[in-house]
Amino acid sequence: MTKNVLFIMCDQLRYDYLGCSGHPSIKTPHIDALAKRGVRFERSYVQSPICGPSRMSTYTGRYVRSHGADFNNVPLRVGEWTLGDHLKSIGARAVLCGKTHARADIEGMERLGIDPKSPKGKHIGEAGFEVWDRLDGLHPPKGKSPSHYNDYLRKNGFDGESPWQDWAASVVDHDGSIKNGWLNENAHLPARIPEEHSETAYSANRAMEFIGQAGDDPWCLHLSFIKPHWPIVAPAPYHEMYGPRDVLPVVREDAERETGHPIYRSNQDVRHSTMYNRPDARQKVIATYMGLITQVDDHIGRMMAWLEETDRLKDTLIIFTSDHGDYLGDHWMGEKLYFHDQSVRVPLIVVDPSPEADITRGTVDSRLTEAIDLVPTIVDFMGGEVRDHILEGRSLVPLLRGQEVEWRTCAFSEADYGRSPARKKLGQPTNDCRIVMAFDGRWKYVHCPGQNPMLFDLEADPQEMTDLGTHPNFADERARMQGHVLNWAYGGCNRVTQTDAFIENKPSEFTRGILVGFWDDADVAEAQAQLTPEQTV
Amino acid sequence: MTKNVLFIMCDQLRYDYLGCSGHPSIKTPHIDALAKRGVRFERSYVQSPICGPSRMSTYTGRYVRSHGADFNNVPLRVGEWTLGDHLKSIGARAVLCGKTHARADIEGMERLGIDPKSPKGKHIGEAGFEVWDRLDGLHPPKGKSPSHYNDYLRKNGFDGESPWQDWAASVVDHDGSIKNGWLNENAHLPARIPEEHSETAYSANRAMEFIGQAGDDPWCLHLSFIKPHWPIVAPAPYHEMYGPRDVLPVVREDAERETGHPIYRSNQDVRHSTMYNRPDARQKVIATYMGLITQVDDHIGRMMAWLEETDRLKDTLIIFTSDHGDYLGDHWMGEKLYFHDQSVRVPLIVVDPSPEADITRGTVDSRLTEAIDLVPTIVDFMGGEVRDHILEGRSLVPLLRGQEVEWRTCAFSEADYGRSPARKKLGQPTNDCRIVMAFDGRWKYVHCPGQNPMLFDLEADPQEMTDLGTHPNFADERARMQGHVLNWAYGGCNRVTQTDAFIENKPSEFTRGILVGFWDDADVAEAQAQLTPEQTV
Repeated sequence: MTKNVLFIMCDQLRYDYLGCSGHPSIKTPHIDALAKRGVRFERSYVQSPICGPSRMSTYTGRYVRSHGADFNNVPLRVGEWTLGDHLKSIGARAVLCGKTHARADIEGMERLGIDPKSPKGKHIGEAGFEVWDRLDGLHPPKGKSPSHYNDYLRKNGFDGESPWQDWAASVVDHDGSIKNGWLNENAHLPARIPEEHSETAYSANRAMEFIGQAGDDPWCLHLSFIKPHWPIVAPAPYHEMYGPRDVLPVVREDAERETGHPIYRSNQDVRHSTMYNRPDARQKVIATYMGLITQVDDHIGRMMAWLEETDRLKDTLIIFTSDHGDYLGDHWMGEKLYFHDQSVRVPLIVVDPSPEADITRGTVDSRLTEAIDLVPTIVDFMGGEVRDHILEGRSLVPLLRGQEVEWRTCAFSEADYGRSPARKKLGQPTNDCRIVMAFDGRWKYVHCPGQNPMLFDLEADPQEMTDLGTHPNFADERARMQGHVLNWAYGGCNRVTQTDAFIENKPSEFTRGILVGFWDDADVAEAQAQLTPEQTV
Repeated sequence: MTKNVLFIMCDQLRYDYLGCSGHPSIKTPHIDALAKRGVRFERSYVQSPICGPSRMSTYTGRYVRSHGADFNNVPLRVGEWTLGDHLKSIGARAVLCGKTHARADIEGMERLGIDPKSPKGKHIGEAGFEVWDRLDGLHPPKGKSPSHYNDYLRKNGFDGESPWQDWAASVVDHDGSIKNGWLNENAHLPARIPEEHSETAYSANRAMEFIGQAGDDPWCLHLSFIKPHWPIVAPAPYHEMYGPRDVLPVVREDAERETGHPIYRSNQDVRHSTMYNRPDARQKVIATYMGLITQVDDHIGRMMAWLEETDRLKDTLIIFTSDHGDYLGDHWMGEKLYFHDQSVRVPLIVVDPSPEADITRGTVDSRLTEAIDLVPTIVDFMGGEVRDHILEGRSLVPLLRGQEVEWRTCAFSEADYGRSPARKKLGQPTNDCRIVMAFDGRWKYVHCPGQNPMLFDLEADPQEMTDLGTHPNFADERARMQGHVLNWAYGGCNRVTQTDAFIENKPSEFTRGILVGFWDDADVAEAQAQLTPEQTV
């Protein structure tokens, strides 16, 4: 039986903005239905709370400190194994429909004599994906080159210098005037683009087109929606689906502005954070953010109905997740970047169609999972070898099938404030602004080289208001958590060119005539006698 | 003026087996003369006390945890920048004459569509060197493929299945019988090969041949002697140059066998260590080890005289170092692998011909230097850009020229006991047997994941006899040193595809039309007003 994978990702979707994760007013019936059919991993963490590095970790199954692409637009260095490489070795395709935020390592390819425009060069430059449709968003006139979506818009009569900017990222005011959708004061207005041609509808359609013609070769389709990421523009009717009463109160305390960690405090002062100090900002932005999520949910529902009709659900693993969250004004911040749950924790639902997984259907799994678990999960499900000397995540398949396994006790995530005002403010060298979170299920510790650490006790302080990073009573917890960070930092998979099994089974050098520390023939005879029968051949 | 570099390396030469570093009986007048003409860095540490990883660090300028080739014969992963890559970008050649211990990442190349036999594939597979002459040693009949030296021996009438094994690694007993030079009971006998055709003479000759025909293009020649590494076989007269009176007493205490760290204790029980418990082993082996060093010294003298005659000294930087040391029975161990100074500390002498370096000639520099400093030093001397987002070492050129610079306060080195009996004895997973030393000039701390750390106080205990790794009085020192390890482990250069300068000078996303967190046109106007004149173009 062909085993396929539909790997759905949203962009900037918080863990708690789904019906199934407890949001009181959002409507996500189709995603909730996925959770009922599969397992919802309720404590899932991305390896960096920002698109680029989070995705590079998700697509390589490796921590940021291992693949090195630690911020948006840092090229993934040539040579890193990607999902596509792992699947290729079992004859399966890794296909992209939507966003990856991948940036090609042109310099690295050229140094190795690889033409970036050759098929191999494109595979490398696209983070290992075969591009069915790439749609990264973020295409104002001076921005990235046009995507397939821009061509589609033009073909359908939505023209202009940048159709994406002019139609999908623009809104229509009550008087009919066209306004810039990037400006959040316009977040309550409908997109100029009709819903059926909007980014979310387009990506869902394109995904179904791919599946419809994919044939019998096994595939993993990465359907990667660019929403609910900014610009916060929703097409009708989603722009007005939610109102002020649906927006949850802000989560923040005055003390955070006064005694918070300087790295976080610095981020409270930038525009994407201060915007939320306007009384109307959260109402407008979050209502539309919720509308965008419900739009994604509707299209997931449409896809699932079609997959069921066409009898594809029985052999397709379905993953639903996000690349990071959004503060939405909580903790006096907007955007993401840092390690409060609003930013670093994501939804993760996996539906394994195998009968062995019936035992876990509809359950919630509270073990700590990480985005780097997805490559091993996909490879494992599709019957490939999980190369654990390269992959730093772990397959979720045993968890999905109710098997007893020892599991990780800490989740890790990394950030880099080297591009933020905090770098200069703290006088930190650019290459030394990486910080790392270790979360053991209760204590969230952040190691900040050259600066004080942070520590939050999520049992006593579930909203993460009080930083205990320098509190004298918590030195033991900090030392323990620092130990986790140290073992993680000096652990992992850097010996990517040789497996553990190779090392464990390697015959002695003696069999190759290399006699290190041998004194005389008696030593040789002794070593000879100790060889196994296979080694004496 | 063309600037060239002659980068000489010995294999397994201890820091303290030179006249200039204080050995009372060894004769190394020509190496001592280099020290008088340049700077001797007396506290120089390799990044792993074993050939393969040490050399991969030396040739990449990066710690083992960064390049990942953490033991002998682990391929250096495709894509790592090498000395050859750095020099290529300034039109200079990195040329090999001797040993590198490089193993090609064939799988990695094939995955990227690079033919390992193409010029690019060979460059990658040879750790970035252009091979003038490769001589890795270790060629018993079942071992590695023959080198240039084997061909040379055959041409000169030294035939057999493996001329290297049969002539250079064989010895002649008093009765004329031929014996196996790998067996250390024969270490006092002369090699079967005449001195002028021995490995050391051959490599020196080949180096001079290269230099003689190199022309005006700048080059860095890596003259990499395979001696005094085992097999401990010296040609006459070097096999009998030193006697029992020249051999220093062994450095070890009974307590080390009883209360030493289990990783070290396990290494005391293997053949390459227990051999030294024979009363005659050190006498035989060390006398010949010393003869091999003096042989290297004589050939260095011959080369220096020739370079002077041919007026090449004035534009050639000369480096003399080793890839690691040898316990030679000290601390109840043989070979290398671990972090006592006998194993991890190496000689390092640099002669900078520039007039600016006159101020330091003949001096001894006690700052902590590392083998990863050599690539930046070579690139810097030759006028290239030191890519400090890739290179983790630092150029020694400012030190050679007496400039005031802030310098490192800790040296680091790594080992992996995953191939040693200690792994099974301690029940440690194969991928988690890496240990790391941090040495701050006084305290030598070894972080051992899953095991107790080690700590030695080299001020109170210069011979490193007493492990304070669990002593209750030294918790503060351990915590401080562990902090160094943590900052090192989570530091370094993993963002190899983007420079710090790029990050520091990157214009705001706003200039590309990406308006994150903008509320209205007033926000846009404010951001516009803050742009520098260059950004508004």
